[in-house]
Amino acid sequence: MQNFVFENPTKIIFGKGSIARIGAEVKRFGTRVLMVYGMGSVRASGVYEQVLNSLKEAGVDVVELPGVKSNPLLSRAKEGIALARSNQVDAVLAVGGGSVIDTAKTIAAGAMADHDPWEFFVYTKTVKSALPVLVVLTLSASASEMNAAAVITRDDTLQKFSVRSPLIQPKTSILDPEALYTVTPSYTAYSAVDIITHMLEGYFTNTEPGESPLQDRMVYAFMRTLMEATEKSLANPRDYDARANFMWSGTLAFNGLTTAGMGVVGFPVHMIEHSLSALYDIAHGAGLSIVLPGWMSWSSAKRPARFARLAREFFGVDRSDDARAAVEGINRLTAWFRSIKSPVTLKEGGIPEGDIERIADNAVELAKTWKLKDYTKEVIVEVLQHCR
Amino acid sequence: MQNFVFENPTKIIFGKGSIARIGAEVKRFGTRVLMVYGMGSVRASGVYEQVLNSLKEAGVDVVELPGVKSNPLLSRAKEGIALARSNQVDAVLAVGGGSVIDTAKTIAAGAMADHDPWEFFVYTKTVKSALPVLVVLTLSASASEMNAAAVITRDDTLQKFSVRSPLIQPKTSILDPEALYTVTPSYTAYSAVDIITHMLEGYFTNTEPGESPLQDRMVYAFMRTLMEATEKSLANPRDYDARANFMWSGTLAFNGLTTAGMGVVGFPVHMIEHSLSALYDIAHGAGLSIVLPGWMSWSSAKRPARFARLAREFFGVDRSDDARAAVEGINRLTAWFRSIKSPVTLKEGGIPEGDIERIADNAVELAKTWKLKDYTKEVIVEVLQHCR
Repeated sequence: MQNFVFENPTKIIFGKGSIARIGAEVKRFGTRVLMVYGMGSVRASGVYEQVLNSLKEAGVDVVELPGVKSNPLLSRAKEGIALARSNQVDAVLAVGGGSVIDTAKTIAAGAMADHDPWEFFVYTKTVKSALPVLVVLTLSASASEMNAAAVITRDDTLQKFSVRSPLIQPKTSILDPEALYTVTPSYTAYSAVDIITHMLEGYFTNTEPGESPLQDRMVYAFMRTLMEATEKSLANPRDYDARANFMWSGTLAFNGLTTAGMGVVGFPVHMIEHSLSALYDIAHGAGLSIVLPGWMSWSSAKRPARFARLAREFFGVDRSDDARAAVEGINRLTAWFRSIKSPVTLKEGGIPEGDIERIADNAVELAKTWKLKDYTKEVIVEVLQHCR
Repeated sequence: MQNFVFENPTKIIFGKGSIARIGAEVKRFGTRVLMVYGMGSVRASGVYEQVLNSLKEAGVDVVELPGVKSNPLLSRAKEGIALARSNQVDAVLAVGGGSVIDTAKTIAAGAMADHDPWEFFVYTKTVKSALPVLVVLTLSASASEMNAAAVITRDDTLQKFSVRSPLIQPKTSILDPEALYTVTPSYTAYSAVDIITHMLEGYFTNTEPGESPLQDRMVYAFMRTLMEATEKSLANPRDYDARANFMWSGTLAFNGLTTAGMGVVGFPVHMIEHSLSALYDIAHGAGLSIVLPGWMSWSSAKRPARFARLAREFFGVDRSDDARAAVEGINRLTAWFRSIKSPVTLKEGGIPEGDIERIADNAVELAKTWKLKDYTKEVIVEVLQHCR
């Protein structure tokens, strides 16, 4: 096991009826909050009203920033920063999924800084202070509700970059599985892909088989539960236990647990996908189900042992040859992505195969920022050719 | 899944060489610390010197409370409270295992209270404030390094009771697997039993099969890793990866993760064992390997389904009849305890079978405090008869 520091202080309030507790949680930090949300689904689901009622009961004044889109834009966060400042809010409350949470985190840090918040994302400035962030989760995928990261896309350059700081990690996140009842089948599927990718990027960081039994088994435990819960949620969107198992595995999948002790985790699949969703506005999860199997196939050709391990231990593949076992495992994962109707090729995702060079040009910039120095433009083109 | 709140802010610094970081961690809270430790093993292992060097380098003054025994006594904690007050320390540092940590927690709360600290343990007072607690772990078993609980034995009545408060949860715990190299084979075994019991008491809280797939799988993941790591540590006490996997699974086993969503967890096995170790000064883990199989056998006779599930899913028992599967699973666990040389009957633990009534008289007091209302004296006698 590698040395690590694990510290995750977010308070999780989980379960039916828990949204009613958000007012009291916000009140711990003050009496004026900026409430960030998306495109109207929180109104349709009734979550919006539940949140406002709870805030009102607690005596918290609310300033609203609606309209955050998926693959959230820096410009929207900047509007939020202006609102947070002019209204002197005490906290930022995200009511939504990863896009909304990451916008709230950017606002929380940006409101306390005297420079362009983009500087956090290109690592020319670090976060020195931030408003407290709180969350009411309505889409489980990013695990942003229990980690220190935020991802934002810059409008003019379409760079989809990220920042990490303990200061922007949510103080409290409310996870009510009933809030997932109205998540559509396609977004349920894309979310599952995102969660699986978070775990497998950590899993494949270990290039030798047999050295991380504890982390591997956590990945298998969360992934198995998530896959079962995805199938049940697609069959019956109002299956409480299925949504609950989906929600909690999604959070645990990327809150630092499965990667603690694994060394420095690179995120090449996320890195390449960011270019797909930045350039084509495809759902992040849909982009990942295209890139992940392609990347696995490209990578396992070089070092099949670890991929064979996943095939045998998780998918029950019974082949002694590593290379063949690895391919069989990748096929099973791809088939499962197909079964939940997430695209598995660029073509299925509506992305022109002729754009591979353009995508690689965009991705290589993020590769530099994330210090994935093996990922030159040529290498990224090679990976993308496996995604056809 | 049941509703739950999960919040665990302890900072874990894990790995080789990490003890050198304790000085800087203590320094976050002040310049004077009460260092609590045990009977000399920290000197023999070299940990004592590493800790003192790090504190010295950070400019922290040290007051020492040595000599804490296993099944730690309230009287020793009271000495610590007096020392903490007279020296006006800023924090309490435990260098040891569960007994030392729990003594440090009791001191931390007691030093800020104007009443007998025993009142915390009989629930007539709650912890209102506490000195910060920090830990350098030298024995993995209690998971006290990452939870809010402390267990203390009152000298005159031999009551072994517990308290829980977020205020006494460690701020930072340093886990260096090399500190386990000198743990004896018997204490390695007893620790493994303790860790397994923590998980299984939560596991058996769920009386219906099939409702907690995520928590069940976490239990299997941690338990499998721990059992492998125990065997490897017994074979080679200086196997770093084995000690590392032991150490981190031991912490994860009882930091709230495996029980979140399982409802109210009762600890009848710990409750009964506390009487064994309070009355006979047997190691806690040795007591548990006597009580756990007996309790499982007594309990599974009434509701075999859950015990059959463990047998099938964890031990690979292939029997369709629940009652028979349950018995087979209990036999496998008992055989494993035997294989690591932990006692599995009262007699093997050196406890007179004729004392069952006396043990039950002691245990029933704790049953009342812990609100385990089904555990009357008669029931406890019945369970103990299964431990012969």
